[in-house]
Amino acid sequence: MATIKDVAKLAAVSVATVSRYLNDSGYVSAEAKKAIEQAIAALNYKPNHIARSLSKKQMQTIGLIVPDIMNPFFPEIARAIEDTALKEGYTVILCNSDEQAQKELQYIETLQQNYIAGFIIATNQLPKEHYHQLNLPVVLLDRVIDSSVPSVTSQNEYGAQLATAHLVSKGAKEIAFFSGPRQLEPVQQRLAGFMKETANENMKTHIFESSFDFLEAEKVAYEALQQNPAIDAVFASSDIIAIGVLKAAHKLGKEVPADLQIIGFDGIALGEMITPAITTVAQNIYALGESATKMLIRLIRGESLVQEHVTIAPNLVIRQTTKESTK
Amino acid sequence: MATIKDVAKLAAVSVATVSRYLNDSGYVSAEAKKAIEQAIAALNYKPNHIARSLSKKQMQTIGLIVPDIMNPFFPEIARAIEDTALKEGYTVILCNSDEQAQKELQYIETLQQNYIAGFIIATNQLPKEHYHQLNLPVVLLDRVIDSSVPSVTSQNEYGAQLATAHLVSKGAKEIAFFSGPRQLEPVQQRLAGFMKETANENMKTHIFESSFDFLEAEKVAYEALQQNPAIDAVFASSDIIAIGVLKAAHKLGKEVPADLQIIGFDGIALGEMITPAITTVAQNIYALGESATKMLIRLIRGESLVQEHVTIAPNLVIRQTTKESTK
Repeated sequence: MATIKDVAKLAAVSVATVSRYLNDSGYVSAEAKKAIEQAIAALNYKPNHIARSLSKKQMQTIGLIVPDIMNPFFPEIARAIEDTALKEGYTVILCNSDEQAQKELQYIETLQQNYIAGFIIATNQLPKEHYHQLNLPVVLLDRVIDSSVPSVTSQNEYGAQLATAHLVSKGAKEIAFFSGPRQLEPVQQRLAGFMKETANENMKTHIFESSFDFLEAEKVAYEALQQNPAIDAVFASSDIIAIGVLKAAHKLGKEVPADLQIIGFDGIALGEMITPAITTVAQNIYALGESATKMLIRLIRGESLVQEHVTIAPNLVIRQTTKESTK
Repeated sequence: MATIKDVAKLAAVSVATVSRYLNDSGYVSAEAKKAIEQAIAALNYKPNHIARSLSKKQMQTIGLIVPDIMNPFFPEIARAIEDTALKEGYTVILCNSDEQAQKELQYIETLQQNYIAGFIIATNQLPKEHYHQLNLPVVLLDRVIDSSVPSVTSQNEYGAQLATAHLVSKGAKEIAFFSGPRQLEPVQQRLAGFMKETANENMKTHIFESSFDFLEAEKVAYEALQQNPAIDAVFASSDIIAIGVLKAAHKLGKEVPADLQIIGFDGIALGEMITPAITTVAQNIYALGESATKMLIRLIRGESLVQEHVTIAPNLVIRQTTKESTK
């Protein structure tokens, strides 16, 4: 394999000149530049990025940490981040933390020690101090730790209000909110939206907690719907939970939407694949990924952010699990 | 930030001694070892993996290239690879090639230049020569290029035979095979299994080609089922295609499985989430990922492989889209 010395020899310039050319870090004459480029092509020389990153202390790579690669929301957002990053000349390295602080730490340390340019973090297992100590640009996605770290999130409370108001307008009398894990900020915001929208309605409400895992959601929903047969509408904190509720409803012989209306949250592609297709509060997944990536790249380039905390409005997508008109 | 010099100073040993300790590359006395460990802890010193990899030419990281992160099969297999790799002390970097040779090349080059230890490649856009030129351990997963590169695959032909034989045994008279892209080897193998199993049956068969994209599969299935109303059974080359066929059948007012039986392929979690749950040829996704990872790590460690090409048998998982008994 060709070395920088081979390139210098063939181009008849010094190694230092080739190094300046490669690192774009000083004057190289037009003549030398041309000779170096020809030598690189002739030798099929690949500059050693590690040696270069030792001087530059930065590779053109973004680390993306997601909490659960099996939840379709995260592959979809990873695609958006990757698309945006590639356009800006960055590659994306994806790591799955599995909602475990230990794993998140392990990945961050591995990547940090290899001079990654910055992180997009869609999980929040670690205390905020840890992200400060990184001394690297970080943008939080989907989950916020505190105001000291830039973030991109959906307007979760607003989305929950859209969903709840829609169920009320379609004649719901007893609504259940199936939340995800209560310690997650998006879940708290969605709960707040649900509470706000039902506060002045003279109706019975329920709150059930489930993880974002399909099987657990189905189990929780089966018991909840069995014990509370008057529930006629469900707002679920994710599409996966909504699909679990739908499955439980089928098992209990309930017709959807006639006996039970269901609205999910996220807007993953899967929601449209199934029958009946799920009515949902669709997050603008692409815009979330794109904004986070653009913010991170600004930070990497040492530019200031126009806005430290970006929130993006979701929208209600009406499909087949809610009624077409009020009875 | 503390440097190796700070550690050496505090431990009262030479930099070379600390370096030998860090790289595990020569004698370090028990006394020196203890002093170095105390100094590292006191200074919160993080060894610079890049500088170390320059001498070792290998980081403890595996690159995984998948063709489509949005297809749930790949996140599931990524989880298996990550689990296995972490147990062996490797982290996994995941890149999405989007079935594009250009992107695959870009990721391989980025990772290669950063001294990645090896690759698991689940896509095959590049000519085999390229993988040879890498001079790095490579294991192919799911798709095989030729016998010169180690691989782990499912027994696709056998799986297709299981599915087809099951449909025949459940009374199917006119079976359609919905293949994925014909240039993919797993698709060719599944087609071969379908052909073999229907060859001696006195029945009408159809072959329709669709990508693995849900929306396209639904469209192809809608037209095919509309134009061929006598089709009473479908074997689909992926669960996503099977779900597209199911959706099309619903739109055409066909009852599943009474009017139309459907069997998918892959065994992704999604197949169980929906109603009716999809009967499928389940690949042993976890075993595929685990085997590929263990093989790659053997290669990285310079050990020989017990077997160059591992194939893993899938199994038929009977759910709700096929009949319980023959009419």
